[in-house]
Amino acid sequence: MFTKTRLFTPGPTMIPEEVRFELAKETIHHRKDDFKKIFGSLSKKLKELFGTKNDVLVLTSSGTGAMQAAVSNLFSPKEKVLVIVGGKFGERWKEISYRFGLDVIELSVEWGKAVEVDKVKEVLDKHKDIKGVLIQASETSTGVLHPIKDIGKVLKDKDVLLIVDGISAIGISPCPMDKWNIDCLVGGGQKGFMIPPGLSMISLSDKAWEKAKSIKKRDFYFDLLGEREKQKNLQTLFTPAIALIRALNKALDILLKNGLEEVYRKHWALTCMVREGITRIGLEPMVKENYTWGLTSVLMPKGVNGQDILNELKNRYNIVFAGGQGKLKGKIIRIGHMGNVDWIDLMGAIFALKDVIQDYVKLDVCADFMEKAIFAYKMALKIDSTTLLSLV
Amino acid sequence: MFTKTRLFTPGPTMIPEEVRFELAKETIHHRKDDFKKIFGSLSKKLKELFGTKNDVLVLTSSGTGAMQAAVSNLFSPKEKVLVIVGGKFGERWKEISYRFGLDVIELSVEWGKAVEVDKVKEVLDKHKDIKGVLIQASETSTGVLHPIKDIGKVLKDKDVLLIVDGISAIGISPCPMDKWNIDCLVGGGQKGFMIPPGLSMISLSDKAWEKAKSIKKRDFYFDLLGEREKQKNLQTLFTPAIALIRALNKALDILLKNGLEEVYRKHWALTCMVREGITRIGLEPMVKENYTWGLTSVLMPKGVNGQDILNELKNRYNIVFAGGQGKLKGKIIRIGHMGNVDWIDLMGAIFALKDVIQDYVKLDVCADFMEKAIFAYKMALKIDSTTLLSLV
Repeated sequence: MFTKTRLFTPGPTMIPEEVRFELAKETIHHRKDDFKKIFGSLSKKLKELFGTKNDVLVLTSSGTGAMQAAVSNLFSPKEKVLVIVGGKFGERWKEISYRFGLDVIELSVEWGKAVEVDKVKEVLDKHKDIKGVLIQASETSTGVLHPIKDIGKVLKDKDVLLIVDGISAIGISPCPMDKWNIDCLVGGGQKGFMIPPGLSMISLSDKAWEKAKSIKKRDFYFDLLGEREKQKNLQTLFTPAIALIRALNKALDILLKNGLEEVYRKHWALTCMVREGITRIGLEPMVKENYTWGLTSVLMPKGVNGQDILNELKNRYNIVFAGGQGKLKGKIIRIGHMGNVDWIDLMGAIFALKDVIQDYVKLDVCADFMEKAIFAYKMALKIDSTTLLSLV
Repeated sequence: MFTKTRLFTPGPTMIPEEVRFELAKETIHHRKDDFKKIFGSLSKKLKELFGTKNDVLVLTSSGTGAMQAAVSNLFSPKEKVLVIVGGKFGERWKEISYRFGLDVIELSVEWGKAVEVDKVKEVLDKHKDIKGVLIQASETSTGVLHPIKDIGKVLKDKDVLLIVDGISAIGISPCPMDKWNIDCLVGGGQKGFMIPPGLSMISLSDKAWEKAKSIKKRDFYFDLLGEREKQKNLQTLFTPAIALIRALNKALDILLKNGLEEVYRKHWALTCMVREGITRIGLEPMVKENYTWGLTSVLMPKGVNGQDILNELKNRYNIVFAGGQGKLKGKIIRIGHMGNVDWIDLMGAIFALKDVIQDYVKLDVCADFMEKAIFAYKMALKIDSTTLLSLV
């Protein structure tokens, strides 16, 4: 059927043409004025995306590098932290915390569910010496949004830092750092930012910077205080990923062209479209409430292995979804619709999924499922600003 | 004079067109077969460049990240290491070692000179508990090649690891890891490899892997044992810089087209050309022997500030050289001719340098300096293989 390749994975995401052309440019030098100009322009846009008045530092690493930067720059060995674990990336916070010798209290959450704020309060009441809460804004392995805003309210007047992995939230759904009392927000380039992987970002609140100053043994490569000094002067501690930085600057121009709210609006509406679409073809979204924008996890019907579906979608239609991770392997498939995806791409995704799964199991398909999905998209676009921003 | 921009910096270096086009491609997913195919192909070529039968691991970071990986994966706090410090990057080994709590013995070398092997022996005899020697193959801040081969011979039967920063040597001048008894060799993408910064590489000898297994507290992001397990299966621990990996694979195809020896030959000949050229225009190379291939440091005549020369070269001719670092700031300029540079580019560099410096100071310029420089290049190309490979 001569289908173009389409990547519907929750990172990396498809890259706009202008951004790819930016990557193709001859390199410039990172200690010269033309780099400084780009880095300065990028810096302003990142603040808008992070919703902060503080600096957003850019690191040359995967998102995990910035997660390590958060843990190693903000806590000393033996300090107690609460880690919310409801998926693979919660587990990553836990692993990093262990590796740096922290005293980890784990709050397990059923995979596919958001953490309950009361449970967080309970643990904090029980362990008065907790110095930080580590959590995902969006847990990418399941597609759940944790209630960051509400946890931020709980922690506001406490001597506890709120450390948020926003890698699959920033630039997709609202996660305003300052407004929500987030003390450390981590981002990655290959999700909402629409560039290939290799850059991460991190921003700290004033409270977090104070804490960082008290840490005796800092990471060398991920040295946030050192990096802040350098980046103030539009330089980096070490040679940065120049091409990716230029690409990011261009990508954010595209992203912010109509304002950040329109980015959220698009992703909200696409999320509504996919959920409607998969429901109308007789499938079930795994996450019923507090679901991630930009990513929809779909439960596989009994007897259907998600991996077979992924392979068949690739072979038949050049469509790439992601599978379940860890204990969800084979049991769900994950449709990424973050970054540079539009509703027509998603028409293909929904049709292809129906077409392939029908070969494995009888589905209860609604005759006008596609009309319904597109209608859901159109309706969702009409949401008013206040409601949109209060959805998360 | 309508001059194109030319970057003569010792990293980043100019990127071949085919490599830049590779960067401009739509992204692929790092857990799928098309990525594995590329990564497997890259892996073989990296072994050739590193001169090793062992795996060369690819990390998403600057070269400094791989330096941190070496220190943090091979030594425990309080272990004694000898660091050779003859420039800014020697100092970096020292800083990283301090940061990870190692007991650092420093062997200072005059900036612009190579370390003497006898001095290394002396220190090793005095401190029998030294567990590693940390050194640069090429010290980029001055343009000196340290005698890695000879140090390798000294350490061969000792219980001491030889850790070499080969960032501005690999793919430029010979640095065969296995033949020279190097236990850990570190590389970076933005020098001889001809890609934009953001990727580093590291390879360990069997002896080094044994040592790595004994380390209790490993870095998380730079976890070499974990990374080795993953990369055996053509995967990475964390989302890698996919675009840069594809670019590197393409760049190495170009680099190795006529064999690695021809790469060395070109860089040797260009080095001869630049040294001849600057001498014939009446300037003096800072490093008289054991000089780096691919980088020539030029002493500024009395009363001339290197920074002024750099600015004027940029303004007048769009030519970008690097300045001196640390205590050499203003006193030297550094002409990078590593990576994708040819002799015609360098004709421009030599002419422009003469033209600009003459406005600041009277130079004793040889009338046919350009002829002489080109002749030096041509002659150097004729060097026989055995001599070429024994120059370092």
